[in-house]
Amino acid sequence: MKTLWQNCHAATMAQGVYSSIEDAAIVTQGEHIHWIGPRAELPTGDYPTVNDLNGAWVTPGLIDCHTHTVFGGNRSGEFEQRLQGVSYAEIAAAGGGIASTVRATRAASEDELFASAAKRLKSLMRDGVTTVEIKSGYGLDLASERKMLRVIRRLGTELPVSVRSTCLAAHALPPEYKDRADDYIEHICSEMLPALAAEGLVDAVDAFCEYLAFSPEQVERVFLTAQRLGLPVKLHAEQLSSLNGSSLAARYQALSADHLEFMTEDDAKAMAASGTVAVLLPGAFYFLRETQLPPMDALRKHGVKIAVASDLNPGTSPALSLRLMLNMACTCLRLTPEEALAGATIHAAQALGMADTHGSLEAGKVADFVAWHIDRPADLAYWLGGDLEKRVVRHGVEID
Amino acid sequence: MKTLWQNCHAATMAQGVYSSIEDAAIVTQGEHIHWIGPRAELPTGDYPTVNDLNGAWVTPGLIDCHTHTVFGGNRSGEFEQRLQGVSYAEIAAAGGGIASTVRATRAASEDELFASAAKRLKSLMRDGVTTVEIKSGYGLDLASERKMLRVIRRLGTELPVSVRSTCLAAHALPPEYKDRADDYIEHICSEMLPALAAEGLVDAVDAFCEYLAFSPEQVERVFLTAQRLGLPVKLHAEQLSSLNGSSLAARYQALSADHLEFMTEDDAKAMAASGTVAVLLPGAFYFLRETQLPPMDALRKHGVKIAVASDLNPGTSPALSLRLMLNMACTCLRLTPEEALAGATIHAAQALGMADTHGSLEAGKVADFVAWHIDRPADLAYWLGGDLEKRVVRHGVEID
Ligand SMILES: [Zn+2]
Ligand SMILES: [Zn+2]
Repeated sequence: MKTLWQNCHAATMAQGVYSSIEDAAIVTQGEHIHWIGPRAELPTGDYPTVNDLNGAWVTPGLIDCHTHTVFGGNRSGEFEQRLQGVSYAEIAAAGGGIASTVRATRAASEDELFASAAKRLKSLMRDGVTTVEIKSGYGLDLASERKMLRVIRRLGTELPVSVRSTCLAAHALPPEYKDRADDYIEHICSEMLPALAAEGLVDAVDAFCEYLAFSPEQVERVFLTAQRLGLPVKLHAEQLSSLNGSSLAARYQALSADHLEFMTEDDAKAMAASGTVAVLLPGAFYFLRETQLPPMDALRKHGVKIAVASDLNPGTSPALSLRLMLNMACTCLRLTPEEALAGATIHAAQALGMADTHGSLEAGKVADFVAWHIDRPADLAYWLGGDLEKRVVRHGVEID
Repeated sequence: MKTLWQNCHAATMAQGVYSSIEDAAIVTQGEHIHWIGPRAELPTGDYPTVNDLNGAWVTPGLIDCHTHTVFGGNRSGEFEQRLQGVSYAEIAAAGGGIASTVRATRAASEDELFASAAKRLKSLMRDGVTTVEIKSGYGLDLASERKMLRVIRRLGTELPVSVRSTCLAAHALPPEYKDRADDYIEHICSEMLPALAAEGLVDAVDAFCEYLAFSPEQVERVFLTAQRLGLPVKLHAEQLSSLNGSSLAARYQALSADHLEFMTEDDAKAMAASGTVAVLLPGAFYFLRETQLPPMDALRKHGVKIAVASDLNPGTSPALSLRLMLNMACTCLRLTPEEALAGATIHAAQALGMADTHGSLEAGKVADFVAWHIDRPADLAYWLGGDLEKRVVRHGVEID
């Protein structure tokens, strides 16, 4: 059974770049796109269902390729304290920062984590997100990481959204391994990752490479384990300092290296060569009032694919809208609206290893798309917050 | 008929400052708040309707006290051009900037303006806004300003939101008065304002005091006319340079002076003495990547009331969420979450001359409030964009 969607324009992202079709038509069949092109070229045939999109602009469903949507508690109290003049050091000394999220996440039941994460995920979905990546990394022990990953899987089965699960056990050093980072890495590699992978809970493996987290050597041990388990890797790299983690990620054919404010041109070359996507996280850049921009010119010059994600997390980017991230990518990081949109569609799909099936409007791909009642695609990056009128189609079916 | 709302906490803003009641109860009668206090002190009586708020935090309905919600077209095309490297000068030479919005607004029918503005207003309302101010100022001739003001009035009658109308004929120089700013001001004072006021379309009068708009002397003529017509005044002042417009506004007992990045401490003293509210517009600060902060210390030291508004407009702040502006007020301007919330409730009411009836949860005031499913009031300023679960009550009636 074919369904026709017409009276629309389409920003297709076909072949991985921004491109558009005025007065387009889309034919879906089951979960897939059967045909897309100018309406004038629509194949004659039988279309039992015809949907009038009222002049909307159709984009691929948005893909948020870097989130920490599952966590216990939130850190609005710290946000308030900081603005009242309390220092980071005082907050950390009082047990705040990521340690407080780890405590709250460990203490929460699976149902509690699911309920709070589902609310946040629904907010992302309301802005046109049809695919999302979610990381563990606030459990930091086998049982708690498993709990997070199970919640992530459950989100994907109970909500109409495609969810990719990333194990980020190497996010921070848990308190019980204080001053024993190598031991914790060993625990991750010998116990946690093999067990969680065997349970089918892990689609990719991530780590945080930073002087206040894990060294490149420690990250490499995690990558070697992932490789042995047949899992692709990603990396939080170059956010606060330059450790060439992104080059390391490229050596392991990482799907993506993320943050990247302090990356070098050599890192960009390595990423381009390996096809590793640069995931920019403008919400964290904005929220932390950073001033060091990622090296946009080097990324463009060497043809590194650029994605944009929310980094939704309680400490540094409590961002509930990927569309707002498109604005911040443009306003703060100086992407063009077309780059930003590619960053939340086709390049985000590549950052999740899904570009063969998702992220663009092309025959054969999964029929995930959004029909936006806007004047032009740049509107998606232009409006600040709020709610845009839209219709969302996932797997060929309209959701609300 | 009394209605009881319970199982909630309340951030009341009583007496014009942030204050909270844990385990509160609210009794509404018709459109008003009849009683509010700790549930333990609830007067015994007959409450035919009891609403369980499920542990929500109740705040006054949000008030957006500075918007330009009504306009033709939008400027996402310019936004995109700028990011592609086109200069402001080139855009202006091609007829862009505010001139393009004036052309599109003049060309649009009343119904078209209503339809596009209603969408934007609904987005603001969806984030808990129950009162909004909307300015004219893209018509710049009598017929077109009237058209805008009629749309503004119609928004307030057709949507469940209280709308205040501000005439901003002195927003920019219309093309037909090129190099004749004094003549345009004379036209405003002798023709436009008297006619529009007589038609009941104007609640307040505003002007743009800036080297690229109107001088303090020209603004004063507008203020004198408003005074003669019995209308309160407001002023766009000190956004790009220091002209002491805010002191001028204070001399005319202006409800507010708005923007204020370049105001002086003397301006702050004058505003404090006259009770003129400082309306900060963090969306424009963010969108224009400004670096000059309003003098927060001087405002606080002299006790100037601080409001926060969206400045929703197509050129410098396409902001569809007042809650996002609370975050930007904190993140960019360093307000505390409590200051930001007061700025979008009680102080915003004062900036509209409505503080006697709106802006706080107190017996006798209009029953406009929002029950937010959040952990603490600071959450309203903490989350970045998206949608928070909430129930909105206006004039004692729940709206959706
Ligand atoms: Zn992250
Ligand atoms: Zn304004």
